[in-house]
Amino acid sequence: MAKPWATLGIDLHLEPTGPGVRGGLTDALREAVRSGRLAPGTRLPSSRTLAADLGIARNTVADAYADLVAEGWLTARQGSGTRVAMGALPTPLRQWGSAAVPPVGAAPPRRERHRPTYDLRPGTPDLASFPRAEWLKAARRAFTAAPNDALGYGDPRGRVELRTALAGYLARSRGVRTDPDRIVVVAGFVHGLKVLGAVLRARGVRTVAVESYGLRVHEDQLKAAGLHTPPLPFDELGTDPAHLTDEDAVLLTPAHQFPMGVPLHRDRRAVVLDWARRTGGLVLEDDYDGEFRYDRQPVGALQGLDPDHVVYLGTASKSLAPGLRLAWMVLPPALAEAAAAAKGGIDTCGVLDQLTLAEFLTSGAYDRHVRSARLRYRRRRDALVAALAAHAPEVQATGIAAGLHAVLRLPPASERSVVQAAAWQGLAVDGLTCYRHPHAIAEQPMDALVVGYGTPPDHAWSGALDALCAVLPG
Amino acid sequence: MAKPWATLGIDLHLEPTGPGVRGGLTDALREAVRSGRLAPGTRLPSSRTLAADLGIARNTVADAYADLVAEGWLTARQGSGTRVAMGALPTPLRQWGSAAVPPVGAAPPRRERHRPTYDLRPGTPDLASFPRAEWLKAARRAFTAAPNDALGYGDPRGRVELRTALAGYLARSRGVRTDPDRIVVVAGFVHGLKVLGAVLRARGVRTVAVESYGLRVHEDQLKAAGLHTPPLPFDELGTDPAHLTDEDAVLLTPAHQFPMGVPLHRDRRAVVLDWARRTGGLVLEDDYDGEFRYDRQPVGALQGLDPDHVVYLGTASKSLAPGLRLAWMVLPPALAEAAAAAKGGIDTCGVLDQLTLAEFLTSGAYDRHVRSARLRYRRRRDALVAALAAHAPEVQATGIAAGLHAVLRLPPASERSVVQAAAWQGLAVDGLTCYRHPHAIAEQPMDALVVGYGTPPDHAWSGALDALCAVLPG
Repeated sequence: MAKPWATLGIDLHLEPTGPGVRGGLTDALREAVRSGRLAPGTRLPSSRTLAADLGIARNTVADAYADLVAEGWLTARQGSGTRVAMGALPTPLRQWGSAAVPPVGAAPPRRERHRPTYDLRPGTPDLASFPRAEWLKAARRAFTAAPNDALGYGDPRGRVELRTALAGYLARSRGVRTDPDRIVVVAGFVHGLKVLGAVLRARGVRTVAVESYGLRVHEDQLKAAGLHTPPLPFDELGTDPAHLTDEDAVLLTPAHQFPMGVPLHRDRRAVVLDWARRTGGLVLEDDYDGEFRYDRQPVGALQGLDPDHVVYLGTASKSLAPGLRLAWMVLPPALAEAAAAAKGGIDTCGVLDQLTLAEFLTSGAYDRHVRSARLRYRRRRDALVAALAAHAPEVQATGIAAGLHAVLRLPPASERSVVQAAAWQGLAVDGLTCYRHPHAIAEQPMDALVVGYGTPPDHAWSGALDALCAVLPG
Repeated sequence: MAKPWATLGIDLHLEPTGPGVRGGLTDALREAVRSGRLAPGTRLPSSRTLAADLGIARNTVADAYADLVAEGWLTARQGSGTRVAMGALPTPLRQWGSAAVPPVGAAPPRRERHRPTYDLRPGTPDLASFPRAEWLKAARRAFTAAPNDALGYGDPRGRVELRTALAGYLARSRGVRTDPDRIVVVAGFVHGLKVLGAVLRARGVRTVAVESYGLRVHEDQLKAAGLHTPPLPFDELGTDPAHLTDEDAVLLTPAHQFPMGVPLHRDRRAVVLDWARRTGGLVLEDDYDGEFRYDRQPVGALQGLDPDHVVYLGTASKSLAPGLRLAWMVLPPALAEAAAAAKGGIDTCGVLDQLTLAEFLTSGAYDRHVRSARLRYRRRRDALVAALAAHAPEVQATGIAAGLHAVLRLPPASERSVVQAAAWQGLAVDGLTCYRHPHAIAEQPMDALVVGYGTPPDHAWSGALDALCAVLPG
């Protein structure tokens, strides 16, 4: 998983495990230069700064820099620090044949990715529990029943069978108010944001407020559309929308803030909707894991309170699997038409998976799977909480009992060393810093881990939990 | 299927069949205003001009205009002609709740689409012959064999199993030279062009020459990316690239010009590649139906002659079905990385269909299906040619024996009346005019039909052919 390192300004695909940290960092930096993500002439952070940011030893960074200087990718000069070599140019216009050519020596081999033994990074459900047999059965039923023209060029909003099934499911499970015409099927949440960013920008939107904590890749999609993304304050009650003024829109995770794990406070739900109605603002509601609440019925979607000012975004990536590449947006009518056009005017999502998901929803297989997954993840969360109480009483899981991840608050100034210690043990886990907006408005930055307890397969879960407890401050 | 009507400047979803022409036109125009495709204040063509363009009676257009003036969508004033009413505004920024609101009366009902009895419009293969049972079997095999992490977030270039299978298949069937790393899987040809347009524009490309005959929707994708798309001349030898100079790139259908049906002339293949090498230009090779040649082995892909100056684009939409939403681009390395990033940095194509297509290709099922489809379409083409000889000796199928469509040259000035007569008979067929670049450089515009003989299911084929012969000038 990519981590947005603040001091480097780019995502560095770095998985430091065991003795390979130096090699891994060297490879990741080389790749960043080769691909042009680090532009020629860019000044790199000092080895001390980058080491602190990555939570690794300063010498490791210094050695990686030295390797890359020797290979010609970087230059180091007294007084001007370490920079990306000008010779390591990204391919100029009209030279299509190759990516940035290393200025000396042969092209470096492709980076080997080191796989951690245990993975507790959030964002992916337990893929081993995907209901393959049920899915194949549903695919057979759906495909056998489909008319021939389902195989042709389709409605850019997506197959009507799926939109109809979703309208019913979202109404009963999340209180979403919609008809199938207002739903646009997209190839995952990020694709939805990409489409939405283009639509909003074309309609004159300039500013979409985001939360102080969230996924950088989501903000990047909005920025890539030319939108400004200032953060909202975050305090002990969660994201605070009180200061929304002339922003055109706001992107929120109301049911279960990602990653902080709290729902949008009741009073603040009202504040957001009032702002939207008063100013004509638009709320983008990311309901990424709305199916998974363990202690009570989940709070309904904001969209149900004001379908004309809220775009609801849901996904099959957490409830089923990201590989399906199916997500959905419920939009006010004018935006639904524009989003369909922005998808390219024809459907870009495969028909078979759409028909299969429709069959899954209407046959009850989806509900059965979600119930079973809810039980699995709830047990894991309970086991995590119990293990913390037994082995790391200073560390507590914050946030509500919901979703596929927990935030573990750590003693001050310990996040980097814990993440590093975990990496050395072969346990991949994210520090909260990765999810903090560079201009976050929040109290004192908290040291914490974001633990994706949904990620491991069943057989690896207890090992992953043991590895986690072993690196937490006792 | 949308038709780009020259005089209206937009696609009008109009399927005139029988007595419903006036209603169909009224609905299509209302929809165009409601959706904002016809902007407020736009002056419509005179009823005489639009009638000629659409090949329908002038009174029909005048009546449709009058209906829409009465409903408030249009205004008609002496001296300024018929215009879209200013009240029929597209939704302004910050009013998300509804699309253009009709200024008087209730919102019009959604347009009913009239389905023609026979469909000979090109672009879609015979969907009834899609190998459903084989596909489901391959899906089961592929899905059962797939590792769990295939269901996670994937490589933005697409699944490695599919890229590996494609590299082998394209090499042996089309002479494409590639390794899996240079292939990027996309959700159909149009999605590929969209990705490519963004990549090229970001690298400073300004001009992509296109052919004088082609699909407007392809050109639209390039234009939407901010690219200029001047047409190349077309003459009796086909598209003429001799005048390529400082264009940055050119989009061609070298194996089988769409829709004119001729391959790019041997000498002109050399001219294009020479231009690309001399100037650093890039060739975009649209190999949409490279599998289907009936008289001899198809000519190999241009890409095989110069993989560093040609982007090869292929698709499953003609060989299998558009609903799969699977196509592929083979790119020079630097562009492959950029295209992967432009897809959004993660894969947007469903994993199950990708794995199934990989299994289809490696198991030989794809080759078997293509052989069977080739035989089916070849027989249809032969039947078409025989029927023309028997019933319409003045009309000849031009172009090589290949693909899923034929161009039938008509007597001068008869195209509109033939298309209209076909529509009245319940036969949907396109005139060549739809495919002509507005600034086409070609001899005297030819009157012709573009007949998609691949479109009907087997049981409707002979009926469609009879209906066609009935409206052709004997």
